[in-house]
Amino acid sequence: MRIKLINPNTTQRMTAAMGQCARTVAAAGTEIVAVSPTMGPPSIESYYDEALATPGLLAEVEAGEREGFDGYVIACFGDPGLYAARELARGPVVGIAEAAMHAASVLAPGFSVVTTLSRTKAMAWHLAERYGMSRFCRNVRAIDVAVLELDEPGSAARRAIVDECRRALDEDGADAIVLGCAGMTSLCAQVEDALSVPVVDGVTAAVKWVEALVALRLATAKRGDFARPLAKRYDGEFAHFSPTNAAGVTETPPPVRPLRYG
Amino acid sequence: MRIKLINPNTTQRMTAAMGQCARTVAAAGTEIVAVSPTMGPPSIESYYDEALATPGLLAEVEAGEREGFDGYVIACFGDPGLYAARELARGPVVGIAEAAMHAASVLAPGFSVVTTLSRTKAMAWHLAERYGMSRFCRNVRAIDVAVLELDEPGSAARRAIVDECRRALDEDGADAIVLGCAGMTSLCAQVEDALSVPVVDGVTAAVKWVEALVALRLATAKRGDFARPLAKRYDGEFAHFSPTNAAGVTETPPPVRPLRYG
Amino acid sequence: MRIKLINPNTTQRMTAAMGQCARTVAAAGTEIVAVSPTMGPPSIESYYDEALATPGLLAEVEAGEREGFDGYVIACFGDPGLYAARELARGPVVGIAEAAMHAASVLAPGFSVVTTLSRTKAMAWHLAERYGMSRFCRNVRAIDVAVLELDEPGSAARRAIVDECRRALDEDGADAIVLGCAGMTSLCAQVEDALSVPVVDGVTAAVKWVEALVALRLATAKRGDFARPLAKRYDGEFAHFSPTNAAGVTETPPPVRPLRYG
Amino acid sequence: MRIKLINPNTTQRMTAAMGQCARTVAAAGTEIVAVSPTMGPPSIESYYDEALATPGLLAEVEAGEREGFDGYVIACFGDPGLYAARELARGPVVGIAEAAMHAASVLAPGFSVVTTLSRTKAMAWHLAERYGMSRFCRNVRAIDVAVLELDEPGSAARRAIVDECRRALDEDGADAIVLGCAGMTSLCAQVEDALSVPVVDGVTAAVKWVEALVALRLATAKRGDFARPLAKRYDGEFAHFSPTNAAGVTETPPPVRPLRYG
Amino acid sequence: MRIKLINPNTTQRMTAAMGQCARTVAAAGTEIVAVSPTMGPPSIESYYDEALATPGLLAEVEAGEREGFDGYVIACFGDPGLYAARELARGPVVGIAEAAMHAASVLAPGFSVVTTLSRTKAMAWHLAERYGMSRFCRNVRAIDVAVLELDEPGSAARRAIVDECRRALDEDGADAIVLGCAGMTSLCAQVEDALSVPVVDGVTAAVKWVEALVALRLATAKRGDFARPLAKRYDGEFAHFSPTNAAGVTETPPPVRPLRYG
Amino acid sequence: MRIKLINPNTTQRMTAAMGQCARTVAAAGTEIVAVSPTMGPPSIESYYDEALATPGLLAEVEAGEREGFDGYVIACFGDPGLYAARELARGPVVGIAEAAMHAASVLAPGFSVVTTLSRTKAMAWHLAERYGMSRFCRNVRAIDVAVLELDEPGSAARRAIVDECRRALDEDGADAIVLGCAGMTSLCAQVEDALSVPVVDGVTAAVKWVEALVALRLATAKRGDFARPLAKRYDGEFAHFSPTNAAGVTETPPPVRPLRYG
Repeated sequence: MRIKLINPNTTQRMTAAMGQCARTVAAAGTEIVAVSPTMGPPSIESYYDEALATPGLLAEVEAGEREGFDGYVIACFGDPGLYAARELARGPVVGIAEAAMHAASVLAPGFSVVTTLSRTKAMAWHLAERYGMSRFCRNVRAIDVAVLELDEPGSAARRAIVDECRRALDEDGADAIVLGCAGMTSLCAQVEDALSVPVVDGVTAAVKWVEALVALRLATAKRGDFARPLAKRYDGEFAHFSPTNAAGVTETPPPVRPLRYG
Repeated sequence: MRIKLINPNTTQRMTAAMGQCARTVAAAGTEIVAVSPTMGPPSIESYYDEALATPGLLAEVEAGEREGFDGYVIACFGDPGLYAARELARGPVVGIAEAAMHAASVLAPGFSVVTTLSRTKAMAWHLAERYGMSRFCRNVRAIDVAVLELDEPGSAARRAIVDECRRALDEDGADAIVLGCAGMTSLCAQVEDALSVPVVDGVTAAVKWVEALVALRLATAKRGDFARPLAKRYDGEFAHFSPTNAAGVTETPPPVRPLRYG
Repeated sequence: MRIKLINPNTTQRMTAAMGQCARTVAAAGTEIVAVSPTMGPPSIESYYDEALATPGLLAEVEAGEREGFDGYVIACFGDPGLYAARELARGPVVGIAEAAMHAASVLAPGFSVVTTLSRTKAMAWHLAERYGMSRFCRNVRAIDVAVLELDEPGSAARRAIVDECRRALDEDGADAIVLGCAGMTSLCAQVEDALSVPVVDGVTAAVKWVEALVALRLATAKRGDFARPLAKRYDGEFAHFSPTNAAGVTETPPPVRPLRYG
Repeated sequence: MRIKLINPNTTQRMTAAMGQCARTVAAAGTEIVAVSPTMGPPSIESYYDEALATPGLLAEVEAGEREGFDGYVIACFGDPGLYAARELARGPVVGIAEAAMHAASVLAPGFSVVTTLSRTKAMAWHLAERYGMSRFCRNVRAIDVAVLELDEPGSAARRAIVDECRRALDEDGADAIVLGCAGMTSLCAQVEDALSVPVVDGVTAAVKWVEALVALRLATAKRGDFARPLAKRYDGEFAHFSPTNAAGVTETPPPVRPLRYG
Repeated sequence: MRIKLINPNTTQRMTAAMGQCARTVAAAGTEIVAVSPTMGPPSIESYYDEALATPGLLAEVEAGEREGFDGYVIACFGDPGLYAARELARGPVVGIAEAAMHAASVLAPGFSVVTTLSRTKAMAWHLAERYGMSRFCRNVRAIDVAVLELDEPGSAARRAIVDECRRALDEDGADAIVLGCAGMTSLCAQVEDALSVPVVDGVTAAVKWVEALVALRLATAKRGDFARPLAKRYDGEFAHFSPTNAAGVTETPPPVRPLRYG
Repeated sequence: MRIKLINPNTTQRMTAAMGQCARTVAAAGTEIVAVSPTMGPPSIESYYDEALATPGLLAEVEAGEREGFDGYVIACFGDPGLYAARELARGPVVGIAEAAMHAASVLAPGFSVVTTLSRTKAMAWHLAERYGMSRFCRNVRAIDVAVLELDEPGSAARRAIVDECRRALDEDGADAIVLGCAGMTSLCAQVEDALSVPVVDGVTAAVKWVEALVALRLATAKRGDFARPLAKRYDGEFAHFSPTNAAGVTETPPPVRPLRYG
């Protein structure tokens, strides 16, 4: 089984670290290919960053389809472009926030999310609601450390995360923690060692979710909202993003159905 | 990894069939032990059946803890005794309705549940709500075939299920199907062959969910609501169900904390 | 009118105290029979305790039907086995959490629940949601005193409850209190004397709710989810719990309806 | 115990009929006084009617306080003026929609409301939501018969109601019926005879609810939102509605609290 | 375009101040007529006040229809009588809480309401829910200053409001403020100057909302719930409030539709 | 006042038509500038189209800030990029779905959305929920006509829309219609002529909403989630999308705050 793990930001150091963590949990026969887009933001810390990371992410999914991947992980806690990626992919596509929240919801009555920047807290709440997980989400907390500092040598990020997790357990009524940033993946084990509760990292959780779905021969529904985008020619600088039909041809589609009136 | 799959009803034929299906999806190193309680209902078709299936189910979890299992699947679509089982278990415990709904929610914008008896439809809705999945659940439908008839030779159950699924796709706006009874597990592949959408069986989904969580070294939170039950002596016929403490001793617990007043 | 008040734990001292309180509010013509199961936990402080208290509770309802009771009160704040009991009973069955929350919701814009153990707080929230009362429930608070200590001579429980209620009024925006444990019934008047707001005890509230419904000639719906369980033979140790049909006969039911295919 | 049943419309024939029904279910020691305002609409079939019925209703509550009533029933399915009435009353005030929905919610997994006019359906939904009962309310249906025709001799209203109830049971998944108009009270028994499910009339339900609360010595919370209105002088035609303080004096209140700034 | 701004309390000083504020934001061709009822409470600080302010308010709407107004603003933060006013009016009717919450919801991820009296906080929450705005409403806070003191010379109200707003921004996670009382309108600019976030006053917002709807030629739906009230004769003191039909005639309406039985 | 109306697809014919409609409702002093991105999809009919339309849309907002616009309308019913646009803009940014739903919610108890393609129905539901409008949204219906056919000469689109609206009024309990596609703007008047209920077009509604907010001097909150994106250098093909700081400089931001640990 081949899973494409897509870090939607362009920071290869993070991509490599995530790939390494993913491989430690992957099953024997699973190949993990971790990639980043060549275009877009080096870190995702706003809705704007998310919007500009998405085209590159989707290009990686489209390429993945040609390369024959069995499933995809979107490795940024905002799960950017998730539904668009599902339109492109035949196999399952799982976001790391989605996987982490699902996992935490079966391990504890409630969890808190600990993320990087305060300004992304509302995004996490929005995701919790979108996935039906707001009933399990006790709080979203931020340590206010920038994403790219998380793994700097000598960074105090680990201690900041552990301290915020402790506050979550003490004050929020949470019994599990969801790490709210793909950049925290490599800190997960250390954080869990320091606490006595489940600490869920979305990158590894999503890898196992995709593995499970592929093993179950379950794929994305290709009727309804997640059907392949209608083929059409895009304009200007984005022409190369034009969606193609099954035959690989880009054309403006014919009328959806013959009109009932004449 | 050793997973105990517990069919909470006493019908060994169903237990064996589920075990077989589970093994077809389990990873190489996973041992599936499929068991049923020795006491209780042969099929679960009411809240009363559920209530009387739960003690036997919990006895199997408690035994499983002594036997060193890594995780548990509760293999009845009502997910009976799920929270009580989590109190007993150190590893993860996943219900088949929970796993199936999670899986369907990442594959399609919405799913319908197709179950056996009309009288269990409200149970399925209640579960969807409990797991935060009601936003994805478009409808719950019943074929009104008794659980134990599902796998009788020459049964028309398969056709009844396929027909109801087709109605779900046509009328409910659903793009995926969740099979709402553990007894449908062995029919899953046949049903999916007949339709062009994801058909999720909870037994196999839950096995993979537990496998994933164990691989991620994630276990049930042992603080808060899912902490081990306080040790105490039960009365009469149920004395042998008395919860013990970590040392295996049953006793009425001492005061929870020194009272603040004197 | 005869009402069976069932304390699902086996502690007769509590059962007797509840019966006494119930009789102080019952109407002239109402006979209250307060009972406990002979089997199961002496106190209910976990989902596991709840699960093992339920069979004994249901046996009391089934016996009650033969004894001709008009209605039932389930006298434990978790309302265990409520829906299963409704399947068995012809008359109304009311849980004490349900009755207390209904009452509080018509007396004040919002209430807080004050219960015994922190680990049962999520249970209370779950009930509030199940009954549609979460919009009125401002908070659930625990005094962390074990159920069986509540009425020990010299116990500080009363002061602990009063203090926690005061905090609820000051901090939660609640204007009424729901006592979250059947063991608090006999303390209710004392607690209310100390505060200037409605303090609702579920045991007495549920008795009056059942009385009201019986006087209105309203009974449990016997079609749909609360229809009598299908008669079938249970196995092993639980054979004596087998549900019978109207004629008192236990047998595995015939097919629900003639299959449409064949 | 003395309960004031207030029909907020001015049609004495309906008031008398409701009083009669109420007395058939009231306990031995309960006196029911059924009244209507002297001013306002003869039937309530719009938000406007509701708004103009409310002052007369409230005058009856205020008079009731002087007359020493123990509790109040607001006998119109829209429960007009419920919160304002609670501000005036010391004892409990229950609306008939509120009581009927509470009752139905403990008797069946779901109910449908059958009311008079289509234009009041959204009102009923709004009430269901306000009381937390929307999770139990499967549908609101109207027979489109004007309120004042309900009890006309030879009226076909009874058959229209029974037919609509049957559709509710067949099509809505409801297992109980709530009659959505106080004018249907005297038809309740006939309707129930024709169906095999609980049919709840709010007038009688509310009488028993108030009786129960008074017997439990529970009254409206007099702190927070339902505190007595601040005394002040109203202007013009409505001067006689001016709220008085405990001493019966009307005056514009002094500052609520000393301002914190100087 | 002519907009009638109705202050439902009788305090002309407030009405004049609101009219003045409204005119500062109104478009060139918009005439603002600010009025108060001649009957009812001088300030609205309880459900009772609200109920008694509503008839006078509705009389102003009914008069407005004869006077040819294009739309209406209900200028009290409880939005009393909103739905009844919509039944009477052909043009749009907007409440100030409704307009302010809509505006705040497009300017910031979340807002807090700062109002006058604590006892009206639940009213504000109820409105937020009714308008679908509770997902944006982070908190409702009160300064506990009486409405009529707000604009007294030398009042410390402005500072109290600013201080409470600061707490809202610091503690609630709100990024915008909704002023929760029509009496705060003239303080709005001063409050916003003191803070660095959007501060929304409902009076001016509602004026612009109505202006926008009228410019769009959008009016209140005259079928369904907001259809004109059925014409009928009211009794006693309230006879002059009787709703008339299109021809201005008051009569009890004929049967809604020919009964289907008979 | 200058408002930039951004059609996120590249079809200039649609942009011009929207601009024309917008000008018919704009106030005297309002200048409407209608633009499309130079890159991206010619029509938006999937999540993928939406994702690829967003960068071009955001470039128009960023340019708009330099050009001194007072506010923005996002003129595609999916409201793509709305939150990212708010991060960039100082003035208000309103989506057409948002504005249309707000407007419809004050005109009728409930509305139905009539859109182009079935596959976008779930998007419309998602928006209704995000804006708190799902309580007003009775249904989302599609005519299954492609966006670009809407205004083709001789197209039967108008009749298809009118027919679907009629079904919405008859079957959904809706009393108002929201047109669910910016391409329907120029048909709005014709559709409303054919029905007797409010028909809301989002393009014109959003223009008036922005006008109103600007006139009220209300702007997007610039603290919290909608603060300007952190300045940073984007990579590769998207380098020209790099967000700049207030001084127009792009650089990776310094640490958000000094870490608390050393």
